[in-house]
Amino acid sequence: MLPLRIGLCGLGTVGRGTLEVLRRNAGMLAQRCGRELEVVQIGARSARPEADLGAIPFTHDIFAIAANPAVDVLVELIGGVEPARELVLTAIANGKQVVTANKALIAGCGDELFAAARARGVTLAYEAAVAGGIPIIKALREGLAANRIRWLAGIINGTSNFILSEMRDKGREFADVLVEAQLLGYAEADPTLDVEGIDAAHKLVILAALAFGMPLRLDAVHIEGITRIQPEDVRYAGDLGYRIKHLGIARRNDRGIELRVHPALVPERSLVAQVHGALNAVMVRGDAVGGTLYCGPGAGAEPTASAVIADILDIARRLNGGGRDAMHPLGFDLAEDGALPVLAIDDAETAHYLRVSALDRPGVLSQLAQILSARGISIEAIIQKEPVPGQDHVPLILLTNRTREREVRAAIAAIEQLESVAGPVVHLRKEALDEV
Amino acid sequence: MLPLRIGLCGLGTVGRGTLEVLRRNAGMLAQRCGRELEVVQIGARSARPEADLGAIPFTHDIFAIAANPAVDVLVELIGGVEPARELVLTAIANGKQVVTANKALIAGCGDELFAAARARGVTLAYEAAVAGGIPIIKALREGLAANRIRWLAGIINGTSNFILSEMRDKGREFADVLVEAQLLGYAEADPTLDVEGIDAAHKLVILAALAFGMPLRLDAVHIEGITRIQPEDVRYAGDLGYRIKHLGIARRNDRGIELRVHPALVPERSLVAQVHGALNAVMVRGDAVGGTLYCGPGAGAEPTASAVIADILDIARRLNGGGRDAMHPLGFDLAEDGALPVLAIDDAETAHYLRVSALDRPGVLSQLAQILSARGISIEAIIQKEPVPGQDHVPLILLTNRTREREVRAAIAAIEQLESVAGPVVHLRKEALDEV
Repeated sequence: MLPLRIGLCGLGTVGRGTLEVLRRNAGMLAQRCGRELEVVQIGARSARPEADLGAIPFTHDIFAIAANPAVDVLVELIGGVEPARELVLTAIANGKQVVTANKALIAGCGDELFAAARARGVTLAYEAAVAGGIPIIKALREGLAANRIRWLAGIINGTSNFILSEMRDKGREFADVLVEAQLLGYAEADPTLDVEGIDAAHKLVILAALAFGMPLRLDAVHIEGITRIQPEDVRYAGDLGYRIKHLGIARRNDRGIELRVHPALVPERSLVAQVHGALNAVMVRGDAVGGTLYCGPGAGAEPTASAVIADILDIARRLNGGGRDAMHPLGFDLAEDGALPVLAIDDAETAHYLRVSALDRPGVLSQLAQILSARGISIEAIIQKEPVPGQDHVPLILLTNRTREREVRAAIAAIEQLESVAGPVVHLRKEALDEV
Repeated sequence: MLPLRIGLCGLGTVGRGTLEVLRRNAGMLAQRCGRELEVVQIGARSARPEADLGAIPFTHDIFAIAANPAVDVLVELIGGVEPARELVLTAIANGKQVVTANKALIAGCGDELFAAARARGVTLAYEAAVAGGIPIIKALREGLAANRIRWLAGIINGTSNFILSEMRDKGREFADVLVEAQLLGYAEADPTLDVEGIDAAHKLVILAALAFGMPLRLDAVHIEGITRIQPEDVRYAGDLGYRIKHLGIARRNDRGIELRVHPALVPERSLVAQVHGALNAVMVRGDAVGGTLYCGPGAGAEPTASAVIADILDIARRLNGGGRDAMHPLGFDLAEDGALPVLAIDDAETAHYLRVSALDRPGVLSQLAQILSARGISIEAIIQKEPVPGQDHVPLILLTNRTREREVRAAIAAIEQLESVAGPVVHLRKEALDEV
């Protein structure tokens, strides 16, 4: 059988990693898909990089690859929305199969790109866009396709998980650990996308679209990052038997779909709590399978290359069989829950962690309990710390039952009005990760 | 598009679960694969079961289903090797797609069945044969297909994991917990297949064949169950920072492939150590992706149905595209490592846990150290317990470095010859789960 001819666009970390793995494992890859995988052209907009390209033709004009009749599969690894979007649309228009690792592109323009690929009868594959080397796209779209998904929750930003792990293990401040993460290469010079939760939101909308057969609703995600997490909250959470993890959560409740990215307390005995450092993990709960968990490296040259090449192998195997790609890239022929609304954060239901700085005098706790109880919120656990000499206020930590966010926000506003309370209430959410 | 017509053979737990999920999620399943999934005939050899079959025709002659021209996909859920083997071969010969959940069948006759399916150009799918609802077959064959797999290690028998979890949590004896597991339905009336490691061996050879592109070598697996695990070893392992898990391990070393099923000490901070009760988990280490982990329910009606229906959906999606199945069911067109030998257990390399019952007198430890050192084995950790009043012997627990099993066995034989040592040496293996 003729080789499958690949045009590689982008020679950053992932591009070079993909080239390396394609070369190193060439013999085995051919045995796995019944034909050679041959890189026939490489493009990168910047100056020709250091990578040894051997005899493979190089161009600065990435659109030349989308036009090259000798290219069967265009692999888009340039990142960002434009010109990646136009490149992918051009490749599709030219009848090429497309593989991308670009989460911003899929999260932002996926619906448009998927429609174009469907209309042209080509594959648009994006396993590498979420959770790096973990085959979570395939698990949701195929492996768990028999299930009505109830919820999924993922540690899907390695930088945030690394920082939170370090804060917990060493009792350090966010800002300190961030600097270290930047030195170690775990965080970018501009860490905003990671630590503000935007990268996680990109991935979450892709996972939610796969889980629920809904459009990619990046606009509808509630997003909080980890910048406001303080060492004392990490410690108090520990005292209560929880760890703080930055999660992306998509959950179907009676009224619609919750889409939210924020730090959350998770039980320290849960598997997700044991996922340390820069690892990613995604829990998925389906009606038939129950709970499953997928864990592995969420970024890096070769883990991402692993996912990119898996997509290429899928394409090769399908082409070998002579069929067209009849599956929607999201695994749904129709958007089943397209009609189900994405809920505002006020309508999300979780348990809550509140840290209140209160005057150390009788009656304060009773005031708090009254405010909460008036909104149907019950207290499940409480820690009151001894007063620190020289400070008027003591921290009071409360865990509530599952309740709608709207009620908790109203209660917080009322609590902050109390004369005996100083400063804003610290509010985090708590996820049991075992609810239906 | 016309419905995909399913013939269901077997109406035990999994058969009934499959029917239930096909009905409950019918609308969503049709949206996921672009056509209805219609069960057109059901067969079971025993008396007609209680399940409500509605208007679906029922037969005691399962071979009638393999011959039914109205059946597109035969789903084999009768279990056991014969007549399942003949049924599947007949269905393949008649051009039907086949889905099976039968690990004994695939582990024992997979090479023959795969060849028949390949020759006839039909799919033989078996996701449900390993680790129930966890899509681990798909992960190895497709999601991680870019990787040269270095090793995999799995908790792939839920009964054994349940029993070991209970032994650890409650300090109980194996035999006690087994009775409880039988009462709870976690263990069969005849638990041999589970607790002696045979079921795990079936699953391991399937995973190894997928990982390394090798034949199904059930004959070559080293198999030990959990029946000899004693509460004191669970406790001593805990003292040293480890838990005892029953693992199936396939590992490529310089000389060949290790295939082994046995209890092993794993670091208590590893994710695998946190997999409790009847859950399954599989760790896979590939050269590109690094380490990944897959966890979920390894058995049960609906988790298994989830995998069976995922296979049906894959078939429907491929047929929709008009292609034939060009992929070998193991994901390799050629057996890459067919030439690599499966090693005898003597050639396996792990670290070791030894418990020696020694006289409490000077010089014994030095004798042990000499015997080990003479075979190149070094001691990495040691616990010597205080003597119990009234007993001459004290337990000495040793952890060794990584060493070939052959050397350790010779050392054990020499230790058991010592006058100062009573009874056999207890020997367990220790797996770091982070080695290359």
